[in-house]
Amino acid sequence: WSPARARGTTVQDPMSDSQPDDPDNFSRRVPDGDDRRRLVCDTCGFVQYENPRIVVGAVVGWKDRILLCRRAIPPRRGFWTLPAGYLELGESPEAGAVREAWEEARAQLEIDQLLAVYSLTRISQVQLIYRARLTDPGVEPGPESLEVGLFRFEEIPFEDIAFPSVHWALKDYRETRNQHAF
Amino acid sequence: WSPARARGTTVQDPMSDSQPDDPDNFSRRVPDGDDRRRLVCDTCGFVQYENPRIVVGAVVGWKDRILLCRRAIPPRRGFWTLPAGYLELGESPEAGAVREAWEEARAQLEIDQLLAVYSLTRISQVQLIYRARLTDPGVEPGPESLEVGLFRFEEIPFEDIAFPSVHWALKDYRETRNQHAF
Repeated sequence: WSPARARGTTVQDPMSDSQPDDPDNFSRRVPDGDDRRRLVCDTCGFVQYENPRIVVGAVVGWKDRILLCRRAIPPRRGFWTLPAGYLELGESPEAGAVREAWEEARAQLEIDQLLAVYSLTRISQVQLIYRARLTDPGVEPGPESLEVGLFRFEEIPFEDIAFPSVHWALKDYRETRNQHAF
Repeated sequence: WSPARARGTTVQDPMSDSQPDDPDNFSRRVPDGDDRRRLVCDTCGFVQYENPRIVVGAVVGWKDRILLCRRAIPPRRGFWTLPAGYLELGESPEAGAVREAWEEARAQLEIDQLLAVYSLTRISQVQLIYRARLTDPGVEPGPESLEVGLFRFEEIPFEDIAFPSVHWALKDYRETRNQHAF
């Protein structure tokens, strides 16, 4: 486990959609006993705490190939990405990575271990990216993908990758793929 | 990096406060194009996506001692814990762990590396716990702590620990404290 795989950085593009706008009837103010501005409902005084969101995803191997999905939705429609998305309530990160791979590529995975943690402070996102194996090579695009593919590393369309963190994850995967513990 | 340090489990007690109640004027329904019930504002239709929250904290060493804080606030007031709390928007996990240690123990840290990731699905919490060193042994309780202490491992009050994940983190720290990469 190396600091090189737990970076903090700032990027413009989230791996998934950005945060929604504020609701109409909330305003931002500092609640009693707090030291930060929060989103407070003008009707009932409810404080909506906002916290960074967790994106879970996987670098999925099949023999010497890696699963990539071409995005059918914005942002970065038409560009290639790893199966990944927001972790849902009550879901473990590993289960979330498995769900996203099914939703985006009809892929069935076996999670190996945590590959990397990327912190994207500008978009308040923490990404947990796992190393995984396909248990069946029969992948096909889900509703959020235009197409899916299994690429040898040297065949990956690096100039058409959707997000910087996909580059980082592919590099970290390649550097550690033969290590059992790192 | 071992699967033993990236566990999924269910516990009753969060390391910090639990999720707030719903605001009065929101109801739960499935938005168009979604497949899950979400919190939707009855006034403006705003969808408040709810996602698991990230707790950041640190096992902080000073020579052969470990920093613990006795909680001044619920839950588990009077019990010992690690400095930890919710990650804020725009904050990296490392910066959040440093901030929490300052707020709870006036401790100044140098982060070493990520020690563990704990997934607490029942309370929709993902904890990122770092290994860190004190840069100055002058610690004192912040407003959320009754007292703070630097304990040798065998002196830790294990019967008065606030949360299961504190036990896990202390154990993982002890098992890996002499390893540079794990």
